[in-house]
Amino acid sequence: MKYSVGYFQFKPELFESEKNLLKMKRSLKSVSADLIVLPELATSGYIFNSKKELESIAEDPRKGPTAQLFRELAAQNNTSYVVGFAEKDNAKIYNSSMLVNPDQEIFIYRKTHLFFEEKKWFTPGNSGFKVFSAKNGIKIGLMICFDWIFPESARSLALQGAQIIAHPANLVLPWCQQAMITRSLENRIFAITANRIGKEINLEREFEFTGMSQITDEKGNILSRADKIEEKVNIVDIDPGKALDKNITEFNHAFKDRRTKWYHL
Amino acid sequence: MKYSVGYFQFKPELFESEKNLLKMKRSLKSVSADLIVLPELATSGYIFNSKKELESIAEDPRKGPTAQLFRELAAQNNTSYVVGFAEKDNAKIYNSSMLVNPDQEIFIYRKTHLFFEEKKWFTPGNSGFKVFSAKNGIKIGLMICFDWIFPESARSLALQGAQIIAHPANLVLPWCQQAMITRSLENRIFAITANRIGKEINLEREFEFTGMSQITDEKGNILSRADKIEEKVNIVDIDPGKALDKNITEFNHAFKDRRTKWYHL
Repeated sequence: MKYSVGYFQFKPELFESEKNLLKMKRSLKSVSADLIVLPELATSGYIFNSKKELESIAEDPRKGPTAQLFRELAAQNNTSYVVGFAEKDNAKIYNSSMLVNPDQEIFIYRKTHLFFEEKKWFTPGNSGFKVFSAKNGIKIGLMICFDWIFPESARSLALQGAQIIAHPANLVLPWCQQAMITRSLENRIFAITANRIGKEINLEREFEFTGMSQITDEKGNILSRADKIEEKVNIVDIDPGKALDKNITEFNHAFKDRRTKWYHL
Repeated sequence: MKYSVGYFQFKPELFESEKNLLKMKRSLKSVSADLIVLPELATSGYIFNSKKELESIAEDPRKGPTAQLFRELAAQNNTSYVVGFAEKDNAKIYNSSMLVNPDQEIFIYRKTHLFFEEKKWFTPGNSGFKVFSAKNGIKIGLMICFDWIFPESARSLALQGAQIIAHPANLVLPWCQQAMITRSLENRIFAITANRIGKEINLEREFEFTGMSQITDEKGNILSRADKIEEKVNIVDIDPGKALDKNITEFNHAFKDRRTKWYHL
């Protein structure tokens, strides 16, 4: 089955949720695809200096402005979207992503492995690694940014049947893009890392994000890689069915060859 | 602590155990190092067309010619060696590696994940992933070649305290060297992949091995990488103590940040 997948790499502006949503709307409204992934915290920006700052921009996962926009786009374009946002759940705030489908269903993932000072303001995710159906029933595994460094994240998703990993990111370290090739290879799955670009400053704190958003196939080939600074929508055609074939050679199967009794995990 | 580690990349000749042992002896007898890793099946060569062929060159792990040579070298040079060989255990043959220490102790690892037609002649390893002490008490984790594609291999060794992974290989696929960077990074450990070079032919079967033996540090830096065809001993100085520090950032720890209750493995 031909399935068109992609990402939108851009620079969210800190605290400017209206502006960010408008940019996403304008950039995506005429893009035809089956699945598009956007960066982590795409609506809010990344650097917060207090829980209060973060609360000011956190939103309801189903009634907030991010859900509203992507429901609208999903229906209009017949596209599934995965987008990162700050999720408000009473007193807790999660670093979350939502999968929004053309039929208006929304699925939420809460980041399991928080990075750096995210630990000060966000609550560690309690959704676990789950696989959801996107458009045409394709199985999507959700993880966010720093989850990449734990091989258990992608492995957990692949073992539950994910064909494509949708991976919103705000990467500042230089290793993830290369490592996602390994994640694809070892699990025989597609992976879409949608990273942000640009420098963000909040008082004395500053981060430079690395771009290079990327799509890898189940054999570890790079199907698309953006550069470090461009704002860009990239779409490629894949056959997600290939991720159901876990044969590495005629003698080797990525999952059946696992010898779990010998693992110390 | 300064600890000098390296590999010997060469082309073993099929069935020519005496010749291969002589080459290893001549190439290593004047090399000063704390730990040297050699390729998988370094004594025997790789391509067998029958169990009988393999039996003709399999050997006792403690009394065979490989053990004899490396005990001699270990005592003489005050070096620990890890070398791949075909291990005979009654009717079974394992694709094994031995760690031979200056004090003459020998530890055996039997390859857990067999590649391709190895499954026809070798018995899958039953030693499990274990960590052993090499010279100066440095903790060494043993894995062989195709074990790399299963993240559980290096993870199991690192979680048991391995500071250095000694990884004899006969690689024919192009992905391992890059993936070992990820294995080092995700586990904050050193890794030494000692690959072979050259083309091997046995009747109508033929393999071209990819060389590029490599040493990576706990931050994923490549400390040494050989080319695809050279016969070469390379030695670098490392501080294995750095592999005991699992902090990725001041807020993130490679092991304590694992959230095992959310993993589906």
